[in-house]
Amino acid sequence: MLHGISRIIRGHRTTAGAHSDRRFSAAPCCANQEPRDYALPNPTWSPDTKRLYEGLSRDRSWRRLPSYNTTVHRDGISPEADRKTRFFTRNLDQDGVGIEYCMFYNEAEKRTICIFQPGPYTEGPPGHAHGGCIAAIIDEAAGTLIEYSSGPAWTANLNINYRNPIPLGSTVIIDSRVEKVDGRKIYISCRVRSHDDAVLYNEATALFITVKSEGLQAKL
Amino acid sequence: MLHGISRIIRGHRTTAGAHSDRRFSAAPCCANQEPRDYALPNPTWSPDTKRLYEGLSRDRSWRRLPSYNTTVHRDGISPEADRKTRFFTRNLDQDGVGIEYCMFYNEAEKRTICIFQPGPYTEGPPGHAHGGCIAAIIDEAAGTLIEYSSGPAWTANLNINYRNPIPLGSTVIIDSRVEKVDGRKIYISCRVRSHDDAVLYNEATALFITVKSEGLQAKL
Repeated sequence: MLHGISRIIRGHRTTAGAHSDRRFSAAPCCANQEPRDYALPNPTWSPDTKRLYEGLSRDRSWRRLPSYNTTVHRDGISPEADRKTRFFTRNLDQDGVGIEYCMFYNEAEKRTICIFQPGPYTEGPPGHAHGGCIAAIIDEAAGTLIEYSSGPAWTANLNINYRNPIPLGSTVIIDSRVEKVDGRKIYISCRVRSHDDAVLYNEATALFITVKSEGLQAKL
Repeated sequence: MLHGISRIIRGHRTTAGAHSDRRFSAAPCCANQEPRDYALPNPTWSPDTKRLYEGLSRDRSWRRLPSYNTTVHRDGISPEADRKTRFFTRNLDQDGVGIEYCMFYNEAEKRTICIFQPGPYTEGPPGHAHGGCIAAIIDEAAGTLIEYSSGPAWTANLNINYRNPIPLGSTVIIDSRVEKVDGRKIYISCRVRSHDDAVLYNEATALFITVKSEGLQAKL
């Protein structure tokens, strides 16, 4: 899967504040409205989720990453379809029921921390997050790391070990790191654990292949 | 992740028609209402999706599997929470916008076919399904196969190769097979391809560990 596409469209990677580094720009119909940044606290966040968010927000080695619920609106590429679409991991209208999450990026360590709180609409086994929901947020966390650390890339492989089930409503940390760069291949590792480090839920690896703008356009 | 839990709760695997083999029973508040089976055609299904559905429905070697949007309601285990929850892959109210899918099971071949149509709320790269959405439906398809072929089991590993992006609105076939049984370990393979076999989108493997009722209760 492709990550970092909006930066290809703009022709460069942006690194400044929330507005310029957001991945998804406003729809043409709402060009004068600022889209909502979903990676900010809302009343459905648990005390543990808020505590982790505030701790990372205070730490200057970590940069909070904004997050939107629509995919990029690109000139010339199906703008009508774009206006009707939603980003998969942000596709529910109600706060707190789905995949509630925010991410922070550490440039020096080539690492992201995703704070993840699975809501009641992410159920698989009763009372616990669906394995597919966990795979989805791992893919999004790893893809965001590759986007910020290396630029546009395709996910070639995602490999997830499930160690323990994740309770609905709990606060989870997804810690993703760049492990190795070998030409265009970039290897990522992810550890998914409880907010207090007491339980290891998942270990995962992902392989990404960086792409050039021309290659991307040919794919799409 | 756990698959097949409702059968543990009932103490036996059921193999008869749609009502008795459904995985999710009605909530206590709706005990007299039949829950909607989401694996039946609706107006958002494309001609290709309907054609595949009708072909498999006519083939007596395949059995259509019902699918519900709530998780099992179990006596004594957080019934209040259960009433507020939704199954992750069926958590959107509107037909056609999310993960539209149905499954068929072939007992003799230990195989499921999942017909999958990613809607506009499953977007990752513009115009294409999110890699996490693809992982989610692969997990659900593999988990359903293990549930019907082998009974309750935990997903221990999910390994997905991404070959080509899946266009939103397209009709996709997820073909899952039991490859090997080694004691409590069961190995599944999945191939994800376009409805006309022209494009291979994903290849995946999954490892499941079968569990006994007591082991499951200890986990939950």
